[in-house]
Amino acid sequence: MMLSDHRVQNSQLRGRLMSAEAAAALIPSGANVGMSGFTGAGYPKAVPQALAARIERAADAGEPFRIGLWTGASTAPELDGALARVHGVQMRLPYQSDPTSRKQINAGEMEYTDIHLSHVAQYVWFGFLGKLDVAVIEVAGVLPDGRLIPSTSVGNNKTWLDQADKIILEVNSLQSLGLAGMHDIYYGTELPPRRVPIPLTRVSDRIGEPYLHCDLSKVIAVVETRQPDRNSVYAEPDANSRAIAAHLIEFFQQEIKLGRLTSDLLPLQSGVGNVANAVLAGLNEGPFEHLTAYTEVLQDGMLAMLQSGKLARASATALSLSPAAAELFEREIDFFSERIVLRPQEISNHPEVIRRLGLIAMNSMIEADIYGNVNSTHVMGSSIMNGIGGSGDFARNAYMSIFMTPSTAKGGAISCIVPMVSHVDHTEHDVQIIVTEQGLADLRGLSPKERARVVIERCAHPDYRPALLDYFERARQGGGGQHTPHLLDEALAWHSRYLREGRMLP
Amino acid sequence: MMLSDHRVQNSQLRGRLMSAEAAAALIPSGANVGMSGFTGAGYPKAVPQALAARIERAADAGEPFRIGLWTGASTAPELDGALARVHGVQMRLPYQSDPTSRKQINAGEMEYTDIHLSHVAQYVWFGFLGKLDVAVIEVAGVLPDGRLIPSTSVGNNKTWLDQADKIILEVNSLQSLGLAGMHDIYYGTELPPRRVPIPLTRVSDRIGEPYLHCDLSKVIAVVETRQPDRNSVYAEPDANSRAIAAHLIEFFQQEIKLGRLTSDLLPLQSGVGNVANAVLAGLNEGPFEHLTAYTEVLQDGMLAMLQSGKLARASATALSLSPAAAELFEREIDFFSERIVLRPQEISNHPEVIRRLGLIAMNSMIEADIYGNVNSTHVMGSSIMNGIGGSGDFARNAYMSIFMTPSTAKGGAISCIVPMVSHVDHTEHDVQIIVTEQGLADLRGLSPKERARVVIERCAHPDYRPALLDYFERARQGGGGQHTPHLLDEALAWHSRYLREGRMLP
Repeated sequence: MMLSDHRVQNSQLRGRLMSAEAAAALIPSGANVGMSGFTGAGYPKAVPQALAARIERAADAGEPFRIGLWTGASTAPELDGALARVHGVQMRLPYQSDPTSRKQINAGEMEYTDIHLSHVAQYVWFGFLGKLDVAVIEVAGVLPDGRLIPSTSVGNNKTWLDQADKIILEVNSLQSLGLAGMHDIYYGTELPPRRVPIPLTRVSDRIGEPYLHCDLSKVIAVVETRQPDRNSVYAEPDANSRAIAAHLIEFFQQEIKLGRLTSDLLPLQSGVGNVANAVLAGLNEGPFEHLTAYTEVLQDGMLAMLQSGKLARASATALSLSPAAAELFEREIDFFSERIVLRPQEISNHPEVIRRLGLIAMNSMIEADIYGNVNSTHVMGSSIMNGIGGSGDFARNAYMSIFMTPSTAKGGAISCIVPMVSHVDHTEHDVQIIVTEQGLADLRGLSPKERARVVIERCAHPDYRPALLDYFERARQGGGGQHTPHLLDEALAWHSRYLREGRMLP
Repeated sequence: MMLSDHRVQNSQLRGRLMSAEAAAALIPSGANVGMSGFTGAGYPKAVPQALAARIERAADAGEPFRIGLWTGASTAPELDGALARVHGVQMRLPYQSDPTSRKQINAGEMEYTDIHLSHVAQYVWFGFLGKLDVAVIEVAGVLPDGRLIPSTSVGNNKTWLDQADKIILEVNSLQSLGLAGMHDIYYGTELPPRRVPIPLTRVSDRIGEPYLHCDLSKVIAVVETRQPDRNSVYAEPDANSRAIAAHLIEFFQQEIKLGRLTSDLLPLQSGVGNVANAVLAGLNEGPFEHLTAYTEVLQDGMLAMLQSGKLARASATALSLSPAAAELFEREIDFFSERIVLRPQEISNHPEVIRRLGLIAMNSMIEADIYGNVNSTHVMGSSIMNGIGGSGDFARNAYMSIFMTPSTAKGGAISCIVPMVSHVDHTEHDVQIIVTEQGLADLRGLSPKERARVVIERCAHPDYRPALLDYFERARQGGGGQHTPHLLDEALAWHSRYLREGRMLP
C-alpha cells in the first residue's frame, strides 16, 4: 500500500499496521491512557472513537469499561467528546474544553484533576499519578529507524511514549510532512537530584532533536488515518476585544516611554481564545516591531503576525488554527518552518525558561475581584469551565502578568469584577495588570486597598461600579481587618444571587 | 579608634563615620528606604531607632514624616517596631512579623504590599516599585578595597546597594568576622532579554563572590554598632508539633519504600516558626542520613542537624537563631562555615533553582480548605498575619509541597480545616500534602471531591469532622456544580460566626 510505504517507513512498525478497532481492542478497561493532543491539534482521531464504540458495546453487555484519560490539553469531539458520550472516562487530566466532558464533570459523573501544564510530565516521571498503561499518539510519519515525525502538537507525547507500557501510533497522512524539522524535542530532562540548567536563552533556540524517540518493542499497533485537526473558526474581534487590545497597546507604549520596555517588547505569551486572538490582531496593527513569542499555542493571530513580519520568531507546543489558517500554514510551511519551534509542554511552560526570557504573559480569565485575585476555572465557585492550563506557569514567572476579560458576561447579568472571586487560580501575588474593555488597572506595587480603588474605577462596568464601591466602603467602615477589607457575609452574595435569580445584582 | 580600624578597613569609608542620629538626619521624608534584615537577622540596629526619634520630633513639630520601608523579610523591634510606633511607615514590603506594624496595617494606618520573596529584587530592577532612595545595610565589616563582609542575612542587600541613590552602612562589631567567606553573592543576574541560566546544580555550589560590592561614592554615612540580632527563643516542641513531625517521617519512609525517594531524601526547605523547628527536631531523630537543605532560613533545628551530621550541607539567605544557638554558631563558626552557604534571596528562593534541585518544601499555614486551597496570610479573610514570604516560591516549584498546621487554634474555637479558606495564597494546584497532628492527607493526583474526603478524614479535628462532612454532603446534594461542590451562602459562615461569636461552630 503506497500510503503506508510513504508514512510508515519502518518495516517493524509496518508489521503492526491494523484497524482502529483492532488497536482499540488492545486497551484494557481501567487503563490509564496517555493520548496526544493540545488545543485541538495533533490528537488521535480513530482509536478513541473505536474505543468509544467498544466501551458502548461493553456497557450494553453490562460490563462497565472506563479509562483514565491523560492528554496534553484539550482535544476534540472525536476524542474527549466520543469517550465522554459513552461515559468511558473515569478520571480526566490535565485540561479539557469538551462540552460533554464538562457536563459530566459538573454533574459529578467524571473525576477531573486540574494541574499546571508544566507540572504534568514531571508528576508522571515522579510516579505521583500512578502507572501509565497505554500511549495513543498521533504522528505525521515514521522514519526508517523508527523515530517519529511529530504532528501539529507536541504536548506530553515524549513523556507518554517514554512512560507507557504499550504504545499505539496513529499516522495521519493529512498532517504535512513539512512539519518534519519544526519540532525541538528536549531529552535533557532528568529526575532530581540530577537536573541541570535547560540551555535555552532565546525564543528560537533549538536545544533538542526534531523527532520523537520510540521504543519499537512497546508499539502494539499502528493505525493509519487521514483527518484534519479540529480547526475551529475564531470569532471576528468584537468591540470589547478591540477595546482590550487598544488599552494594552497604549499601556505598552507608556511602558516604552518610561524605559521599562523597548519597541520589540519582550517575548509574548498569549492564552487561547477569541479575546487573545483579537489582542494579537491589534498588535499586528500596532507600532511594535521585531516581536517574538514564547507561548503554548499558535493561533491565527500569531500566524498573521509572522506573515506580516511583525513577529520574527515564535515558540509553542501546539498549533490551534482555523481551517483557513491551517490551509495557509500548509501552503507556506517552509516559511513558517523557519520561524516556528514546537516544543514539549514541559519546556514551552517551564518556570525556569519563562522567568529567564522575561515574558509578557496575557491570559483570559472568568473573573477578578477588587483585590486582584483571579478565577480562571470555576463558574460560580463550583462548576469547572476548562482548567487552569498554562496560565499559572506563565503568570507566576513572567516579566509582567496580564489578565483580561470583558467587564460583564451573560448580557450584563454577571459582573466579571466582583467583591471576592468564587475560586482562586491566581492570587493577588501573581496578578499585575487587569484589563477589560473599560480600561486597564496597573496593580504593580499597590496594597490591597489601593488595588481595589484602581480595579473598580478602571475595569468594572459602570453599571456595577456603585455596588462595588459600596461594598468596599462598607468593608472599610466595618469592624473587620483593614488590610483586605471584606464583609464575609456578603463576599460571595453576588454569585449566590446569580445562582438563585439569574443576575448578580437585585 | 581600634574598633573602626578593625571593622572599617577602607579609609574613604572611615571618613564617613558618624553617629546614628547624624546618619538618620540624611534620610528625607517620603523616601523609599531599603533596609537589610531577614527573620530577625542582619538588620540595622541604630539608624532605624534614630530615624524613629527624628520622625517623632517632626510629628511633635507638626511635620508629618513617613517613609516607604523595604526589607528582605521580617526584622525586629529596633527596626519595624521602632518605626511603626512613631507611625513612620507609609508603605511596607515585602514581609513583616512585627506586632505594632501588624496592628497598624490591620487598622488601615499602614499600607502593606505582600510579594513573593523571589520577586522583590527583580521588581525593583524592572522599576515596578518606584525609585529606591536610600539603602541602610548592616555588615560585619568593610575590606580595604571597600567590599563589604555581609552580616547574618543577605536578603535583598545586593539589590538595595545596587539600586539606591545613597547608602548608609551599619558596621556591627558583634557579628562574627568568621562570617567572611560563608556568603555567596551571585552577580550574574541580568534583565531580560539578556538572562542566562543560573549555574547552580547542588545545594553547596558556590556561583558568586563572598563579598558585597559597594559604590563608595554613594555611601553617605557609616555607623558603628555592637548589638546582637533578635535571637528569639523557639518554643519546645509540643505534642502537636511532635505528632506532625511523626506523620511526616512515616510518610517519607513510605515514599522510600515506593521508590519515590531515597534515604537521603531531597533537599529540604523548611518554613520559619515553632512547628517547622519541631519537624527538624523530629528529622534529627529520624532514620534519614546525608540530608541537605536549600531553604530561606536556618533555624536552631538545622544547626542541630548539621552538628549531628544528619544534615551534610545547607543553603539559606539568613540565620534565625535562639541566643543559645547563636552562641553555638559563633563558637563553632569554622565548622558551620564549611557547611553553610548564605545567598541573596532571589537565589535562595529562585523558581529555576527550586525546580531544578527538586525540593521537599515544608511550610506552615493558617488554614486549608477541604479542597486543598491554603491560606498562609490572612486571619478571617481581612487581617494580615505576616505575609506570604517564600512559601509560594517553594510550594509551586518544589518536588513535593507540604503544608502543616495544628488542626485547631484558639483552644479549639477555630478549625484550621474549613469549608472554604477565607483567603487563598496557595491554590489547589500547588498543594500536595497537608499535615496536622491528626494525620497526613496525600492529595497528589486527586480530584477535588476525592481531596475533600481525604482532608476531612485525615487532617480535621474530630470535633469538626461531622460539620465538615455535613457541609460537603449537602454541597454534593445541592443543585450547584459538582466539580468543587460548594454552598456559597455557607462557605464562609464559619469565619463569620467566629468574628461574631468567637467560635466557628454554634
